[in-house]
Amino acid sequence: MNKMSKPKAIEFWFDFASNYSYLSVMRIEAAAARLSVDLRWRPFLLGPIFHSLGWSNSPFVLQKAKGDYVWQDMARECEKYRLPWTRPSTFPRASLLPLRVALLGAEQDWMGAYCRRLMSLNFVEDGEIDSREVLAQVLTQLGLPAQAILDEAASEANKLRLRQQTETAANRGVFGAPMFFVGDEMFWGNDRLDDALLRCTQR
Amino acid sequence: MNKMSKPKAIEFWFDFASNYSYLSVMRIEAAAARLSVDLRWRPFLLGPIFHSLGWSNSPFVLQKAKGDYVWQDMARECEKYRLPWTRPSTFPRASLLPLRVALLGAEQDWMGAYCRRLMSLNFVEDGEIDSREVLAQVLTQLGLPAQAILDEAASEANKLRLRQQTETAANRGVFGAPMFFVGDEMFWGNDRLDDALLRCTQR
Repeated sequence: MNKMSKPKAIEFWFDFASNYSYLSVMRIEAAAARLSVDLRWRPFLLGPIFHSLGWSNSPFVLQKAKGDYVWQDMARECEKYRLPWTRPSTFPRASLLPLRVALLGAEQDWMGAYCRRLMSLNFVEDGEIDSREVLAQVLTQLGLPAQAILDEAASEANKLRLRQQTETAANRGVFGAPMFFVGDEMFWGNDRLDDALLRCTQR
Repeated sequence: MNKMSKPKAIEFWFDFASNYSYLSVMRIEAAAARLSVDLRWRPFLLGPIFHSLGWSNSPFVLQKAKGDYVWQDMARECEKYRLPWTRPSTFPRASLLPLRVALLGAEQDWMGAYCRRLMSLNFVEDGEIDSREVLAQVLTQLGLPAQAILDEAASEANKLRLRQQTETAANRGVFGAPMFFVGDEMFWGNDRLDDALLRCTQR
């Protein structure tokens, strides 16, 4: 590795409904910063991806044995990463409006804090996240013009953008979340976040 | 942790057809020994488990995007663990007779070497493993009475035992491989092997 060369960027594809995305959302910004890796947030809708694979719901719901396992695994993983955890009473939670807002925030400096707050609502406080009221409160607490952002998030142009982002995910081979890209190389799951970040710093 | 207490045992459920089981087979014996953890080999047939979940084949075959990903991931994982790797030209490979032999070997001191040899045949040398000829050669090279072992492996009693072992897997919630148990606690995938071994040494 040329130590003077700039690390490659990491693309982070996620959905607020995804429990393994929770683990990555909570730690990716700090982890990328430690390695001076540029972080590109890529919110997308996981549901249509699952539908295109022939699944009517999350595999953690459709496959009972795997679903039972996942909640054990999440409790252990959160302990490993020292993250708080509450098994959500509704899973997967609707996340359409939060994702539309995230699309607007992706290039903004409030994106990390916004995403962590949404994930905490879902996976720590066990609260619904897909409502204007909840989002208005979150955005206001971040010191942002909540109503203007929510209006833009719900605009036809932005709705279309989220559909297009999700199509891009499908076209690039995304079949789950979280998914990371370093260039064209794909890494699946929070378990591969550290590998993906390391790849950013190689060659 | 009471440092004088004996670590718990780890159960290792695997199938020679499973590529992620390859990673664990190659490293589990040494890793368990380092922590003085008793290793209990639990060969089983993954195919009937997949069938019971409604899948006619491995999800890596049925889901094209995931399958494409898995072979990238395997190459990277093998590099990480410094293991040789060849993508098998047939996947998943038939593994019935090798598993029947493994059932006989599970309590024998040749089990580790036998399993590593079979996995190398499948995932390094890209060779078929489900034949008496191949197995006779492997067992002979290990200094074992190949014909006697193969006859016992193919006995009705041993065939029944493998079916029963597979039913036990299903009843305990096994939905993939490799799967590890520490007591009743389940850990899925080579990515969780180190966590499972650590759990053996706790409390």
